[in-house]
Amino acid sequence: MILVLAGGVGAARFLSGLVRVVDPSNIVTIVNTGDDTELHGLSISPDIDTVTYTLAQAIDPDRGWGLRDETWRAMAALEKFEGVRPEHSRAAPRWFNLGDTDLATHFYRTARLQEGATLRDVTDEVRRAFGVDVSILPMTNDSVRTTVHLNDASVSFQEYFVKLQHSVPVTGVDFVGANNANFIDESLITSADAIVIAPSNPIVSLGPIRALPHVDSLLASRRDDVVAVSPIVAGAALKGPADRMLVELGHEPTVVGVARMYAPVCSTLVIDQQDAHLANEVEREGLRCVVTDTIMSKPGVSEELARRTVRATPRQGGISWPD
Amino acid sequence: MILVLAGGVGAARFLSGLVRVVDPSNIVTIVNTGDDTELHGLSISPDIDTVTYTLAQAIDPDRGWGLRDETWRAMAALEKFEGVRPEHSRAAPRWFNLGDTDLATHFYRTARLQEGATLRDVTDEVRRAFGVDVSILPMTNDSVRTTVHLNDASVSFQEYFVKLQHSVPVTGVDFVGANNANFIDESLITSADAIVIAPSNPIVSLGPIRALPHVDSLLASRRDDVVAVSPIVAGAALKGPADRMLVELGHEPTVVGVARMYAPVCSTLVIDQQDAHLANEVEREGLRCVVTDTIMSKPGVSEELARRTVRATPRQGGISWPD
Repeated sequence: MILVLAGGVGAARFLSGLVRVVDPSNIVTIVNTGDDTELHGLSISPDIDTVTYTLAQAIDPDRGWGLRDETWRAMAALEKFEGVRPEHSRAAPRWFNLGDTDLATHFYRTARLQEGATLRDVTDEVRRAFGVDVSILPMTNDSVRTTVHLNDASVSFQEYFVKLQHSVPVTGVDFVGANNANFIDESLITSADAIVIAPSNPIVSLGPIRALPHVDSLLASRRDDVVAVSPIVAGAALKGPADRMLVELGHEPTVVGVARMYAPVCSTLVIDQQDAHLANEVEREGLRCVVTDTIMSKPGVSEELARRTVRATPRQGGISWPD
Repeated sequence: MILVLAGGVGAARFLSGLVRVVDPSNIVTIVNTGDDTELHGLSISPDIDTVTYTLAQAIDPDRGWGLRDETWRAMAALEKFEGVRPEHSRAAPRWFNLGDTDLATHFYRTARLQEGATLRDVTDEVRRAFGVDVSILPMTNDSVRTTVHLNDASVSFQEYFVKLQHSVPVTGVDFVGANNANFIDESLITSADAIVIAPSNPIVSLGPIRALPHVDSLLASRRDDVVAVSPIVAGAALKGPADRMLVELGHEPTVVGVARMYAPVCSTLVIDQQDAHLANEVEREGLRCVVTDTIMSKPGVSEELARRTVRATPRQGGISWPD
């Protein structure tokens, strides 16, 4: 079984390549839920939905989130409340877009959680509703909320990422609740044949997972079998604020910086061709380095990237490895 | 000020006539919330929305509920969860239709209530968002839930009305929480120049309002100024199950039966031309009887009905009464 630790869009694209080189029933992905939020009374898990929708080929390919052929009638109808909402109220915000058909997923999740189902149960039910074969698990059933500290305020991850369009300097990040949350299933780390850290933001996608009790030490115990794919290419994030956030929080915004962050838990880093000249520096951080094409904007790249990534791990267990 | 005690569709149509004969700023309506429900995590107030949407001329005129030019994309997208929902789960039902643009109202209400706003506050904000001048109030800020007892089960009002399409015999009705709920504003009853009981179901629309502490005795103290419009015409309800429900719960399904139910709190009953032959029987129950056209399916009828209804009350206060 291959275990993939995942954030949102980058991880989802990596997984959509992985299912073409490894039997999907042999893939388990554990997804960040630090981005989860509640809006309009609905429980929303953006990274889980992005992974699920992408693997279902139901994702909107241009936006990279939400469903294809989507409409936005409910969101548009919120406009009339702008003029009547009291000053202090944060009700019915319009900065977080929820498509009409996407809403059904949040309705189902919200109702099931209110019935007492775990997020793991609900995530699995949603996965099956979308016909996805890969096992998708939340990193925890408990509430962990990524809080982003700015110069003059602290905001939720979604407020930083969507409302402020990640265009403000970050002074710190907290994963509120992580200390008291339980990682979803430690045996998945101990029993995996290989563990992949997907090309997601090391701070706000992988950070929440690593902040859960025991996860880092469990990963460290499997370090030889852990391979990461760098989300940074040529000093920049392909999507989102990872590059600026790395600088703002004292990291080097390069594959070398990524190598340093992952060195305690990971023995191999997959980097892009454009960073081939940094391979030696990555290896000086104590990681093996694999150089390949990592920009998954063209068809076929994610499949080849997945193949190269899995090949970089020691062959163990009884699963069929890619040739 | 004219106070109108209201249920859903019938009351809303009556009010849409009333605003053409009385200055809307002199009209206050107190609406049944026993039908309120929670679905998908959303707080839904069907009667309040029917009254608001109707007065805003935003109602779908054919259905009598929900918004015109509506789409149903979110509801349709729930279908995929049918096959994965556990047997015991009641999550994400599809029997209660929520239109895509209607959802925005529930989003706003849910979020404001979760912020600590009262239902009265939220109802007023929604009213203003829809540009309605009539004051619309919930009967209470507290939770009252109409429970319908069937031969072999007890269900919520919406399950009875929508899911079972009110096609099953009713053995009893309870207004759970009514004893401990506070009526929204007693001073509206004591200070109203006239009080109208709208043509709504006497059991499940007016019943919850009358079940709130002090309401019946306050209405009785204003009995001379209270006029009701019969929702029963020629022994049948114009809409909904009022006629059968009256029979099943031991009442006579005629204007005489309605007169008996309202006699303690109401001095005048407005009945339809088709029931003119029962006027003497109504008066034997101790009510004055006004005979007019009450079937509001044609334009102009609701306006004339409202005029005749208001004229049937003693002229008091400083408002302009219709000629």
